[in-house]
Amino acid sequence: MTNALATNSSSTDSFQGINPATGESLPGFFQEATADEVAQACEQASKAFSQYRKKTGAQKAHFLEQIAAEIEALGDELLTRAQAESGLPLARLTGERGRTAGQLRLFAEYLREGSWVNARIDTAMPERQPLPRPDLRQMLRPLGPVGIFGSSNFPLAFSVAGGDTASALAAGCPVVVKAHPAHPGTSQLVGEAIQRAVDVCGMPAGTFALVHGRTTAVGMAIVEHPAIKAIGFTGSLRGGKALFDAAARRPEPIPVYAEMGSTNPVFFLPNVLKEKGGALALAYVNSVTLGVGQFCTNPGLAIVQQSSEADTFVQEATKAVTNSQPAAMLTQGIQRAFTAGLDTLSQASGVQVLAQAAAVESFANGTPTLLTAKADTLLANPLIAEEVFGPSSVVVEATNREQLLAVAKELEGHLTATVYGTDEELLEYADLLEILEQKVGRLLINGFPTGVEVSHAMQHGGPYPATTDSRSTSVGTNAILRFARPVCYQNFPDALLPDELKSDNPLRIWRLVDGKWTN
Amino acid sequence: MTNALATNSSSTDSFQGINPATGESLPGFFQEATADEVAQACEQASKAFSQYRKKTGAQKAHFLEQIAAEIEALGDELLTRAQAESGLPLARLTGERGRTAGQLRLFAEYLREGSWVNARIDTAMPERQPLPRPDLRQMLRPLGPVGIFGSSNFPLAFSVAGGDTASALAAGCPVVVKAHPAHPGTSQLVGEAIQRAVDVCGMPAGTFALVHGRTTAVGMAIVEHPAIKAIGFTGSLRGGKALFDAAARRPEPIPVYAEMGSTNPVFFLPNVLKEKGGALALAYVNSVTLGVGQFCTNPGLAIVQQSSEADTFVQEATKAVTNSQPAAMLTQGIQRAFTAGLDTLSQASGVQVLAQAAAVESFANGTPTLLTAKADTLLANPLIAEEVFGPSSVVVEATNREQLLAVAKELEGHLTATVYGTDEELLEYADLLEILEQKVGRLLINGFPTGVEVSHAMQHGGPYPATTDSRSTSVGTNAILRFARPVCYQNFPDALLPDELKSDNPLRIWRLVDGKWTN
Repeated sequence: MTNALATNSSSTDSFQGINPATGESLPGFFQEATADEVAQACEQASKAFSQYRKKTGAQKAHFLEQIAAEIEALGDELLTRAQAESGLPLARLTGERGRTAGQLRLFAEYLREGSWVNARIDTAMPERQPLPRPDLRQMLRPLGPVGIFGSSNFPLAFSVAGGDTASALAAGCPVVVKAHPAHPGTSQLVGEAIQRAVDVCGMPAGTFALVHGRTTAVGMAIVEHPAIKAIGFTGSLRGGKALFDAAARRPEPIPVYAEMGSTNPVFFLPNVLKEKGGALALAYVNSVTLGVGQFCTNPGLAIVQQSSEADTFVQEATKAVTNSQPAAMLTQGIQRAFTAGLDTLSQASGVQVLAQAAAVESFANGTPTLLTAKADTLLANPLIAEEVFGPSSVVVEATNREQLLAVAKELEGHLTATVYGTDEELLEYADLLEILEQKVGRLLINGFPTGVEVSHAMQHGGPYPATTDSRSTSVGTNAILRFARPVCYQNFPDALLPDELKSDNPLRIWRLVDGKWTN
Repeated sequence: MTNALATNSSSTDSFQGINPATGESLPGFFQEATADEVAQACEQASKAFSQYRKKTGAQKAHFLEQIAAEIEALGDELLTRAQAESGLPLARLTGERGRTAGQLRLFAEYLREGSWVNARIDTAMPERQPLPRPDLRQMLRPLGPVGIFGSSNFPLAFSVAGGDTASALAAGCPVVVKAHPAHPGTSQLVGEAIQRAVDVCGMPAGTFALVHGRTTAVGMAIVEHPAIKAIGFTGSLRGGKALFDAAARRPEPIPVYAEMGSTNPVFFLPNVLKEKGGALALAYVNSVTLGVGQFCTNPGLAIVQQSSEADTFVQEATKAVTNSQPAAMLTQGIQRAFTAGLDTLSQASGVQVLAQAAAVESFANGTPTLLTAKADTLLANPLIAEEVFGPSSVVVEATNREQLLAVAKELEGHLTATVYGTDEELLEYADLLEILEQKVGRLLINGFPTGVEVSHAMQHGGPYPATTDSRSTSVGTNAILRFARPVCYQNFPDALLPDELKSDNPLRIWRLVDGKWTN
């Protein structure tokens, strides 16, 4: 962390935070990290790994809790800076800070419980014929230093101390974070808080590093450094795929966990629209425009079956979007991409704009927009189902049940899919649920996908192009599994085994011993 | 399975099995699969997936057991053919058949127990402030059709019905197997046995397919087919890396689990050599020459510290290799690669040949060979530590403890590493164990790595280049995890949930409910 927020001098390689609501430059200059600085951070992380990997669950738990406390101790300074850099409301950022501290504490609790290591013991059978069985004990061990990319849309919860960092540190991996240039000041404050926790807890120097950069060079230098053993990323398909490709090209390929968003289709079945189509239209538009549509789980696609109830639903949604308010997006670049994406989408053959909120002149405003297309149009041009990041959504009208199923079959991988229906028609549409289950990481009934609970059962991931690795999640306690690999210890004396595998189970964790789960 | 073993006519695209002990062509012609045939197999697998993915654990368990029974019912015909095609002794193949049936039955048992799906339930909290928590339930679901490559070195246990097939079918994934051209007749017999099990158990057509081919085109067509969602492979680094690269280049990248072997270093510490160096030398040479050195875990590297005991160890090993017997390798191609690899290795600066068994003229014999080099030589030229597939090994002599540790640090990823030592010196060399743990999937004390137990705690995988995915294993029950991904069901009525997630836990599996493991 060679950058200080207090730096007052600019240089050719320095940049400032920008307030997306006003366009003004914010105090502080941040240095684009040089190749040498990135290499140094990665090498320090590698050195730290030899010690940090041996920390006990309790030690790592204490460290994560200290990070949470240090972030909270930043108080209003953090929230004010995050608001200035992101344009997000203070209430949202206060909640996001709570989420960030909460997920650090959830991982701490998960480490103290300790069973996540999937410990397995097959005891020796020295008398077995024709060959004896040796004593075999297995548990998950950390992969090594992890490169993490802060995301623009959650300047706290998916950024410097977000879920990727929390899960990697929990697994026993040092992290090198590339700050997102949309909120360098927020990143710096959080980075310094983590560094204080490193010091307070006596964790090895190099356990955490933060580098800044606006160019792709800084990120690529992290991905390509031989000390880095995995990558965590939340952002665009183009960005995530570029990191994935670079990681696959390395002399030693490494896993890339890139969460690249999706359109999160929502299917509204006929009878539920009869029962409460008006209320659902409002709730749907609320989910589309929540946080200026900048959630990975923003529902960009609604599918209905042709009917008078569907017409009413569309009319109500149209009204709601017309009456909604534009608001500042995270950056001017994101706002421009949103506008360009909308232009392309609305010019596609067969796509109509139904409603748009009244534009308000500003630096980076995103204007809520509702579009529509027939299912035929979507089936002929699947690009219509691709994500436009921002507060817009396309209502797709299918002529009948078969066409609705055809739309479902045509979908690529998404983070989520949702079906709204009455109890009875959900059973009638079980085949729709089966199709969707094969396309997503999370399948919802009668709820909106925005709002991603941080818990044990959450799955925030999905088949490509939603992520580069559908076997992984970036939210919830299973996220720790991304940064660990099994190691088997054969014929080890108890004294040389990790506590998790010692015969008397001193940590009282759940273990699969000779095929039976026991603690 | 358009090929029949009984086919008597050849065509330009057909080939025969070859007996590596004699060079003679074996009965039966096998057709190189056309691009259309591969595509058809993959499309059938995709169709089958929509049904096979819904089979219960008990149904899949019965199917795996039926496969085991059908393979055993082939009787001597299978063993005779496998012996003719592989040159492996009948006793070894009888054992390998037992291993093959045994691992199918182990997966059946694992499915019946059922907890492998990692079920997690976070119950709803409708009253929570500021936002309610929805009901979230998660479990592992199958990825989709899997492409599997039969391996040459285990014509039964790592081939058509080997661990990859068993674990993919257990996960709920149809498989398309590319038979290894070194044992097409064995593959065909086993493929037909699996097909009979598909029929007997009423599994959907397309659940299993076998294609033959000697060219890389057949394999690449499988990897590139959009219906295929993962690849299992055991073989060479070159072959595995080519599949990995092809899979990463797909429009939808997919995981490749390639197990590519390694040199499996064995460290002999000073005091254990004092105590029983002679016996260890014999056991080491036995492990090197076992199965004509054609195990992935064959110890190709032994590291000792300079001493009179180390000299004795080398002398005894030299004697043992000189007195050992050459035997037919799996194919003439493998034998030629072995000879070429040995030539390159023995001509490397600083490498000496210590011993070679007396050559016996034959079609594809591999001649056991022992080489030696100073640690300085290895540190200057790490290529010496790379695998030469076959019955050879290099003894590396370190001048002292520091140099021995330097050799350990220099190692790339391996499947296994082993340390031989007395109880006391193992504690003194704890730092060696720590270094090695970061390089391998399985770490052994006082045992040889050949002999890979099929069990819950086995880890047969390791950091690149041992495999393309160190988070996975190709042996043991955890292998099933390669072919599954988590799906979260939010706010589902009980009737629409899989049994694994229903509220009353009808399958009595272990589940993480609100953070507590319970069944």
